[in-house]
Formats: sequence, structure tokens, C-alpha cells
Amino acid sequence: MPRHPQTSTSVREISGSVFTALAHKLATFEGEVFPLHVGDTWLEPPEGCRMEDFRVETHPGMHAYTQPHGHPDLLDALGDLTTRRTGVETDKNDILITTGATGGLGAIMGALLEPGDEVLLLAPYWPLIAGIVRSFHGCPVAVPFLDVVDSPETAVERVRRHLTAKTIAVYINTPNNPTGRVIPQEWIEAVVEWAASEGLWIVADEVYEELVYEGRHTYCRGLAPERTFSAHSFSKAYAMAGNRCGWVVGPRQSMIELQKVGTHSFYSTPTASQLAACRLLQDGYGEAWMAETRALYAQLGREAAESLGIDPPQGSTFLFFDAEPYLDDRGLEGFLNDCADRGVFLAPGASFGPYPTWVRVCFTAAPPEVTRRGVAVLTELMRRT
Amino acid sequence: MPRHPQTSTSVREISGSVFTALAHKLATFEGEVFPLHVGDTWLEPPEGCRMEDFRVETHPGMHAYTQPHGHPDLLDALGDLTTRRTGVETDKNDILITTGATGGLGAIMGALLEPGDEVLLLAPYWPLIAGIVRSFHGCPVAVPFLDVVDSPETAVERVRRHLTAKTIAVYINTPNNPTGRVIPQEWIEAVVEWAASEGLWIVADEVYEELVYEGRHTYCRGLAPERTFSAHSFSKAYAMAGNRCGWVVGPRQSMIELQKVGTHSFYSTPTASQLAACRLLQDGYGEAWMAETRALYAQLGREAAESLGIDPPQGSTFLFFDAEPYLDDRGLEGFLNDCADRGVFLAPGASFGPYPTWVRVCFTAAPPEVTRRGVAVLTELMRRT
Repeated sequence: MPRHPQTSTSVREISGSVFTALAHKLATFEGEVFPLHVGDTWLEPPEGCRMEDFRVETHPGMHAYTQPHGHPDLLDALGDLTTRRTGVETDKNDILITTGATGGLGAIMGALLEPGDEVLLLAPYWPLIAGIVRSFHGCPVAVPFLDVVDSPETAVERVRRHLTAKTIAVYINTPNNPTGRVIPQEWIEAVVEWAASEGLWIVADEVYEELVYEGRHTYCRGLAPERTFSAHSFSKAYAMAGNRCGWVVGPRQSMIELQKVGTHSFYSTPTASQLAACRLLQDGYGEAWMAETRALYAQLGREAAESLGIDPPQGSTFLFFDAEPYLDDRGLEGFLNDCADRGVFLAPGASFGPYPTWVRVCFTAAPPEVTRRGVAVLTELMRRT
Repeated sequence: MPRHPQTSTSVREISGSVFTALAHKLATFEGEVFPLHVGDTWLEPPEGCRMEDFRVETHPGMHAYTQPHGHPDLLDALGDLTTRRTGVETDKNDILITTGATGGLGAIMGALLEPGDEVLLLAPYWPLIAGIVRSFHGCPVAVPFLDVVDSPETAVERVRRHLTAKTIAVYINTPNNPTGRVIPQEWIEAVVEWAASEGLWIVADEVYEELVYEGRHTYCRGLAPERTFSAHSFSKAYAMAGNRCGWVVGPRQSMIELQKVGTHSFYSTPTASQLAACRLLQDGYGEAWMAETRALYAQLGREAAESLGIDPPQGSTFLFFDAEPYLDDRGLEGFLNDCADRGVFLAPGASFGPYPTWVRVCFTAAPPEVTRRGVAVLTELMRRT
């Protein structure tokens, strides 16, 4: 009973930013900063799809509410897109427009979780998912996966060992943040089949679906539409993270519950952001831009990986590697500090699951030349260790 | 344990829109529609503060993330504003920028509630607050207040009778949606003093602070800054509901917990919306517009009240009255249907607490001439009953 001055236990258990320790250094660093820890893009969105392109004169009411669950035109466009991509007939009643994928995953977890319920997170995982589960009084359970699984059988074996009577869902993020991996379709099929046999929900985080450089993205909705919620976003693909516009697709009969949580946590997604998303989809503004951007990101990812001596990314905008060989008795903190002393900021592995010696590098947060210089500084530091 | 296909009990208990029954009529009505049930404004935001006024050329990165807890300039501007208004020294560390007041109240409830905790809602209350409490596994407790309280003593007497061992907070909405009342300072002082004596938090919903036509708005933060979270918004005052930008002010040591819930439910507030809010505050774009708008809304509220034979609003954009004298054996539903048959849509009282025969009228959702015609149709219907 958190009366003043107490607050919710569950939220207190969410760790603040693991990055906090380095924030002061970042704020006060003199010299060129290489913000490789951020997950964002330096690009501006496609021309024609920027805020300046939407005028009151042609879009009267564009600063007022639209329907809480989404602008009708965007819902329709996403219904068509989802049908094409997943092979599952989808319309506006299967979709909720959300404040980015974060709002979408919040709506999913809010709609599913009872206090104490457990969600299996295939690790390494997107850092915020654990806090989202906790915000709604659930328990996140890290399942080491991408670093240890090598077949459909070991995939199932890994998730099964974390199943308890309280497990309600499996969270799968592909293309993966932080590893840059695209999870093979056979592994996903095996996990989904097992989840179905245990009566679990599937929560698929597919925000990097547009950013695949090698292999092929698997749409979980196509495998088990009756039990899958998939979260998507315009943020990552189209350089619109600040617009806060994403969407969730799921089983129709449950979407009303997601709508309720959405309405009660962010009410609606910004109207202008939805207009920008509509234009991307409807008028073909997005496609050519995306093809060009994808090629550029793939090139940047390959270059960074080559410099660091690791495998190139298959998708997403990240590389993830074990810095253990470069650590002294100060551990990862010392390594991150040494990097920071040279202007290079990295995201620590503990944010992504049980990976205390790993680091994540984003190769799209800063302009290419800045990223290249930052990666070179990092490579040089690692060579000297 | 809500395994597939079950979902969270707590969220299932949130009623869907009470308005759903009339939605079909609204969608198919032939003839002029008077949408007096909506809580929004027909106005466009002040010139200079619209999306079209923010260009990539002058605001590079305006579509990318800003700090999750808020744009630095907006945090600073709101710190100054809050200090001036409440008399309590306030800076960026006491503030969280949120996706409208809804995001803010979600962050507050998320940060405070343990499962089963109770929040006393002074009624009539803003409809979404009950669902927000439920979304985070709390129990909303309606406290009939504005219709029965007539002194500081009866104010305390009313809230005290709903206190249990599980009560953690009191929610106060002034200027009030739906009643259009500005709660007298002495009543608020009495309730806050009682809440302090019981160790409760205060959650003050002050989104209509700019829209006061009679009396004076009381800033709860000024009375008990150590236990008060106040939610504010640019939506209602500045015709920016679709921008989804609001803010919460609260005790510094607890803001980190609110930040966590915000980060995990909407991540950040749209960057362009924060730039628009900055311009309102920093460059004086908002003040003259607000003075004019306030006078216009006051006039519209007085006209509507006079037509309906009720007291004029003291603040907000609503009127609330008991339609009991106009009901036949079909109850309120019949009355709402009769209104809808004439194109007039009203919000049913049950959304706002135990007010099954009351209705809410918004006098700013449609342009003045439309509202006037709608109110005239409603008045005529009531005369004939």
C-alpha cells in the first residue's frame, strides 16, 4: 500500500537507465562525441512526409483528436499492408495505432498481464520490454537464446526450461535489437508451435522488419494469428522516432482490450504523425526512400562490423559483441569509461539480458562519417588492450 | 493467469465506451450532426504554433527522439511557469513531459499503485481516470462530491466515508469535467489537509486551468507540494489535443518513478509537439490567443446554459445536468436516442460516476453556430417532454 511517500514496488524494481553513470560524461565531454549508444537515426524523414508538409489549410482539424484507436485512412492502409505481408486477411478491426511500438507493447502487456504473471523474453532483448512488463505488475523472465540456440530443437529446449505455471506469453524480437540478427524462420516456427501447445500468447516485436540485409523476416502473425500480437513502428524504418507512431496487429476479439489500455495510457497517437504515416503508405513516398536507406544502413553495418572484427548485421541498426577480451579488473564499467574518455559511448550489455560483458553499437545514430570515426576510435582502443 | 485466449481481468472490467450504443447512429445519421458529446475544440492552434511552422531546415532532428522525459527547453519553460503560478520553486527535475494529461495520469497511477490499491475519485470525474486506475490494477472509488458538498466540513466528511486500509490517493479535477465547476479553494484545502493527515497522495487534474470564467483556479501543488502530482495539458487550452503534449509536476524524489512508467508506456512525447508547446510559452504566441479564446468559450457556455435553463459554467468546456425530468420509462437511453434522432449527441452521466440520469454537453466541440443550433434542438426537445 504505497501511501505517501512510498511508490509502487514493481516500478521501483525497474532499473533506471543503465547508462546513467555515463550520462554526466556525455554531457560534459569536450571534443567530438560518438553517440553509438543511442538507438535512433541521423536521417530526416522522406520529403513530403515531414511535419512542414501538413498544413491546416489542406488538413483542417489536424491538431485535434482523431479516433482513439487510429485515423481511419491509416487503419485501412495498414490492414492492406498486413494482409499482403502476412498472408492473413487483416482489416482495421485487427489493428491499434499506438505511440510507437513502445505504446503498442505497453497496450499488449497491459491487456494480458495479471499481477505476477511471467513473460518469457528471448534474449538478448530490447531493453524496455522488461520495464514494460514490470509497469503492468508482471515478471520478465530472460531466456538466453540467440547466443546459445543453434536449431529448432535447441530453441524449444531453451524456452521450455523457463516455463512455469505463471507463464503467459513469449516475447520474440526479430530482426533483433541488440544483436542485428534475423531469427531463422524454423526456430520461430518451433517456438510458436511449442507456445501454442502450452496455451501461451506470442508477442512479436517486429519494428526492424524493413531493415533486413541478409535472410528474410518472418511475420509471426502468419504462423499463429489467433495468439500473436505483433508490434510495428514507423520510427526506425522512416526516421520518425520523434513522431511516436506505430501499430499493433492481433486477434480481433482481443483488440478491444488493447484499445482500452491504449486509450488509458496515451489516449491516441498524434494526429499529424498519423497523417505522415498515411502519406508514406498511400502515395508511395516511402518505398524508394526505404530501398536507398536500407542499402546505406547495410553498408554502414558491414563497415562497422569489419572494423570491429565481428559478423556483419543481418538486420536492424545494431551490432552486439562480447567485450570480455578487452576488460581488465574494472570490468565492463572500466571499458565503457575508457571508451567515454575518447568520446565513444556504448550501451552496456546488462540492459539486454544476462550479458554483463557485452556492448551494443548503433551504426545509424550519428551521420556516417561520425559513426566511422567513432568505430575507428573504438577499434583502436580494442587493439591496444 | 490469462493464457490464450484469456486477457487481464482488470482491463476487462474497464467498460468500453458508454457511447458505443450511439456510435452507429452517429456514423449513419443523415442531416446536420451536433457532436456535443465530444470533449474537444473546433479551433485550430494559434498561428506560428502549428506543425507547418516547424521546418527541418530550422529545426534539424525535429522528427527524432528528444530526451525521454522532455525537451530541455520545454522543461525549463514549464519550470518557470509552475514557479510563477504555484509559488513553489520548480525546475526541470520536478517535471515530466507526457503524451497529454492522459499519459501523465497514467504515469502517476502506474508509479503509485500496487494491485488492489484504491484511489478516491471526487465525482463527477473525468471518465478516463477510472480506467487508468484499473489499467494499473488499482480500484477506482467514486466519491459523490460536487453534487452534495456545500462546505469544507462536508467535503471532508464525504471523502472520509470512503477511506479504507487500501486507499492511497485522492483524485481532484478542477476546473471540472463534466460539471464546468471550479472547486472552491477552501474545499480543496480541507480535503488536502485531511489527505495529509491520512498519509495519502493527491492527484490533481488541472487540464482546464486556463479556462476559468468565474472564481479562481487553485493549484494543489501550492498547498502540499510534497504529496501532490498535478497533470496539465496543452490540449484543451491551445486546441492541440491531437498533438498529445501535456506535463506532470510532482515531488522531485518520486519523479524518477513516473519517468520510468512514462518511458515504458509511451517512451517520449512527440518532439514536434514539444517544439510547438515551447513556442507558445517562450515567444508569447499563446497569451493573446488564450485571452480571446477564453472570452469566446465563456460566452458560448453562458449562451448554452441560458438556453438549457441551468447555471453558467465557471470553467472548462462543459455543462452537466440531470435529465431526470425529461425521461420516460426508457430511461436515459431513450432520451439520448431521441436526441440522436435529431442529430444531437450527448455524453451519458454514467461515464462520470454514479449519475445515471445526467448528461454532459460540450460547448466547444463544434463551431459556435453548430453548437448554438444543436443546443436549440436540445432545448426544444426538453420543452416538449
